[in-house]
Parts: sequence; structure tokens; C-alpha cells
Amino acid sequence: MRKSPQSTVKLQVAVLGPLGTYTHEAAFAKFGTQADYNEQQTIAGVFHALSETIPLGVVPQENSIFGNVIETYDALQHAGFVRGEITLKVQHCLLVRKGVKMDDIQKIMSHEQALGQCQDFIADKFPAALTEKMPSTASAARALLENPPNCAAICSKICAHIFEGLEVLREGIQKEALNFTRFYIITRSQNTPTPPLLLMTCSRTALLRLTAPLHSARHGTLLSHLNSLQLNVIRIDRRPLANSISFHDMYYVEIRGNSDGNEDSWVLVVNTALQRVRSSGGEVDLAGIW
Amino acid sequence: MRKSPQSTVKLQVAVLGPLGTYTHEAAFAKFGTQADYNEQQTIAGVFHALSETIPLGVVPQENSIFGNVIETYDALQHAGFVRGEITLKVQHCLLVRKGVKMDDIQKIMSHEQALGQCQDFIADKFPAALTEKMPSTASAARALLENPPNCAAICSKICAHIFEGLEVLREGIQKEALNFTRFYIITRSQNTPTPPLLLMTCSRTALLRLTAPLHSARHGTLLSHLNSLQLNVIRIDRRPLANSISFHDMYYVEIRGNSDGNEDSWVLVVNTALQRVRSSGGEVDLAGIW
Repeated sequence: MRKSPQSTVKLQVAVLGPLGTYTHEAAFAKFGTQADYNEQQTIAGVFHALSETIPLGVVPQENSIFGNVIETYDALQHAGFVRGEITLKVQHCLLVRKGVKMDDIQKIMSHEQALGQCQDFIADKFPAALTEKMPSTASAARALLENPPNCAAICSKICAHIFEGLEVLREGIQKEALNFTRFYIITRSQNTPTPPLLLMTCSRTALLRLTAPLHSARHGTLLSHLNSLQLNVIRIDRRPLANSISFHDMYYVEIRGNSDGNEDSWVLVVNTALQRVRSSGGEVDLAGIW
Repeated sequence: MRKSPQSTVKLQVAVLGPLGTYTHEAAFAKFGTQADYNEQQTIAGVFHALSETIPLGVVPQENSIFGNVIETYDALQHAGFVRGEITLKVQHCLLVRKGVKMDDIQKIMSHEQALGQCQDFIADKFPAALTEKMPSTASAARALLENPPNCAAICSKICAHIFEGLEVLREGIQKEALNFTRFYIITRSQNTPTPPLLLMTCSRTALLRLTAPLHSARHGTLLSHLNSLQLNVIRIDRRPLANSISFHDMYYVEIRGNSDGNEDSWVLVVNTALQRVRSSGGEVDLAGIW
């Protein structure tokens, strides 16, 4: 049902599946029909799928309501390198088989979270309808094809493109008006050649991994290392450092170039900042730059 | 099955249930038989249970392998105040009905996570045994009483105290040698009188809530506020700020008094630090001090 590649070889992009989820929609918003999308069952699977033939992946990094996605941060401890970001407004849509009208709908299927976010819409428009929880919003759309026509699915509008015979009946039916998800575009390593499609304007953003022992004898270690960067810290996330002494932490620090920065290469600016942290005894490395 | 209070009124402590879980064990390690434990189904439930008759609660804050417990941080946005901490080494034990020997065991029940952490032990000692997933480690222990005697449960050793007729056959059977969980002891608010049992030596620790808009025009806002504290920052955790503009963050910042601090009251030191942050335009308040 997915549009197949033509004679030219398309860019291959691994995404958290199944196709039709919001990660797929975010990737599609970036790469459109110039890419083919390789679905993976898990976030770790997207990282593992990266290869010479699949140079890019897209994984969720955080949602404005639910917070950060720890699977993505934990995968970044061992693999992958961030090369870009995509922010998507989560817009739940009501999909049906073509020709089905609002009055026909007697059952609404979706992922539990989406059903919850649209419960006001459902109570208002379909007070008598059954609701059915599905493993994902995309699987709810797929199920429309195997159910009687009096069913609807709550999902991303991209499902109307990838499943033939479906159409969007309503858009933006969720309660939370401001629901954004931010995604990272990842490559296998910093040395992976950047595909031409990803040649973007520099965002002067970078993601660092900074380890900080909790019981350090040194005064203010974490803070002094952050200060040594001399750059604008915009996000700090903490995860347990894998295979370490208990409660030693890995901090993921996102930095952004100062807006008054000059024309210096952003890569040079970041590498110089990392060197300053290392000179003062900090353990830091680069997990992404874009 | 739980030991009932005697004629004197005991301290009431709300814990994440069911009784027999590690939160209960941590609370018991602190308050022992001088308290009665009130089980709650969820972390939010522990916060809601706090009242004049139940002045204290115990909730997990972080695990050294799995990271922080977001339900606890999110509950602290609206309710509760941290008054202490407990760190517990997670020691999975093999429990059976009294008299059952290793050779008798044909089925092992536990929570999925505990079964996974003990899979080496199970494969080594019971290669032919069935395993059965249960909703919690404590419910596995409880199920021993309703199953044939050739069953075992993997759970906290406190289950041998609360369920009559069970005994510990092996201790510390998990693969991860270093598996600690840290808990917060909470009260309803900063003004809740401290129960005498909680009169502890001052740990010179505090938890702050610091809000930081992502797209601030000010340079280095988050970092400058952290610096204004002039105290040792030992943990930083980020959560979405509830009911806010998307991607505005709430940072939970744990600070510890400098070891070379003088005899100043820790409360005074912290309040002075908060005042410095506010003077420079920061939005900060106190979520706990102990």
C-alpha cells in the first residue's frame, strides 16, 4: 500500500513504525516522496537499522505534554549521532472509509492515548459510539479496511495517504490545543556522509553527553563544566550511566549558538567549547550537531 | 496478614502498594513497626492520601538502572513536599511456602522486570521450571498461598514478614549487583508539622522547582539561575511544565550544602539562595528540604 520506489534509488529513512504513526508523518514532512520509509518496531531498532543503505533514521525525542523519550536518550549512549530535528504539531484526525458520513459512525478505534486526548470530541459528536483500544493509531487506520464501514479511526492524517480507500473526515479533534512532538534525525555516526537531502541551513544546535559523578570531591563539578561551555544551554536531561557505579549520571545537554555569534563555523565553536570542558577535567563528548 | 496496630495510635505512612513491594520495604526500613502502612494503588494516590491522620508518604524517586520516576516529579508540581530520603538496595529473594526445598520448585512467579533481572539464576538452578508473570512482586508472594507448594516467588524479603507461612530460600539472586532505588519521604506541605519519628539529622539537601522558558531572549537564563544558587547542584531533572506554552520546562534541581559550610541553619542558607535567584529574575520555589 506504500508507494513503491521508482527506477531511481530513493533515500532510505528508518522510522519508528508502524507506517502511519506520527514519527512517519514527521519524517514525511521533512523528506516527502523523495525518501522511502523503513519501519522498525522499536526506537532501538531504528538505531540498529542504520547502515550504508539506510543512512538516516527519525526517532521521537520529546513531547510537549509527556516529556522526553528515554528510549532515545538511552540508545544515544551507545549508538547514533543526531544530525537534525523536526517538530510536528500532533493533530489527531478522524478517518473513515471513503463515503462514510459522521452519522454512520458507531465505533471509534485508536491508541488509548489518542482516545483520551479526543474524549471531549467523542462525547460531543458520538455519545453512543463504542470505542476500541488499538496497539497504535496506525493500526486503527489499517483496521478500518477489515471492519464494517460504520467505523472510524483516530490517527495521523498521513494514514489517508498510505492506506488506500480512507479519507479524513475531521482534523485537529484533540483536546490539548498545544501538543507538539520533537524528533531527532539520526545517522550511524558523526562520520556518516550527510545525504544531500539533509543539507540544511545550520541550526547552531548541538547535543552533548556529559558524565557527572554524584559523589565528587570537587566543588560544583556539573555546574562548572556547564559554565565552561560558554554557550547557551537550552535542555538538560539526566539518565543513569550504563554499566556504571550506581547513581552516576549521564547528562544530555543541548546547546544553541548565541544569536550574536559571528560567522565562525559552528563545528569549530562546539569543539572549542568541548575542549574547555575537558581541560577542566570534565568528561564530555558530542552526540549530535546540526 | 499485616500486623495490626496495638492500643497506641501508630504513625500512619502511605506507600505505593501493594504491601510487600520495595516501596513498603524502604518505608519499613525507616519506620519499622512504629508505623502502620497505608497502601495506595498509584504514586499520585500516595500524594492524595496525605492528611492530618496520614502525615507521611513514601514514593520511589529514582532507580540506579531505570532512572527517575516521572510520576513522582509530576505529582510534585501540584502537591506534596519532600522531607527526607531512603536508599534501598534492591535484593530479589526467592520465597516459598515454609518447608519447600529447592528441588521441589517447578514454577516461579514474579513481576516481569524481576524475572528478567533473575534470569541467570533461574536458568542455572531451575532450567526446567515454568515462569509466570504477575502484576507485582508482592502479588507473586501472595499467590504462593493459593498455589500448590511446588511454587516459588521472586520478591522483596519483607513479603516473608507480611504473608504468614512463607520463608526466604535465597537472597540477592538478581543479575545486576548494583541495583538501588532511592525514595522520597513526603508530607502534604512545607507547613505540615514533622512527626517525631522523622526528626533526623539534617542532610543539608533540598529540592527546587525552577521554570525556564526555552525561547528566552536573555542569555544563559537556566545556567545563570543555577549559578545564582551558589550551592552544589547534584541532580537536574526536566519535565514539561503543566498547562504551559509548549516546551516550557520545569527543572527539578537537587542541591546539597557544601561540606565546608558553617553552622548556619540549612533552611536559612536555602532561602537566601532562592532569594538570589528571584532577584535576578528567576522563578523558583522550594519542593523539599531535609
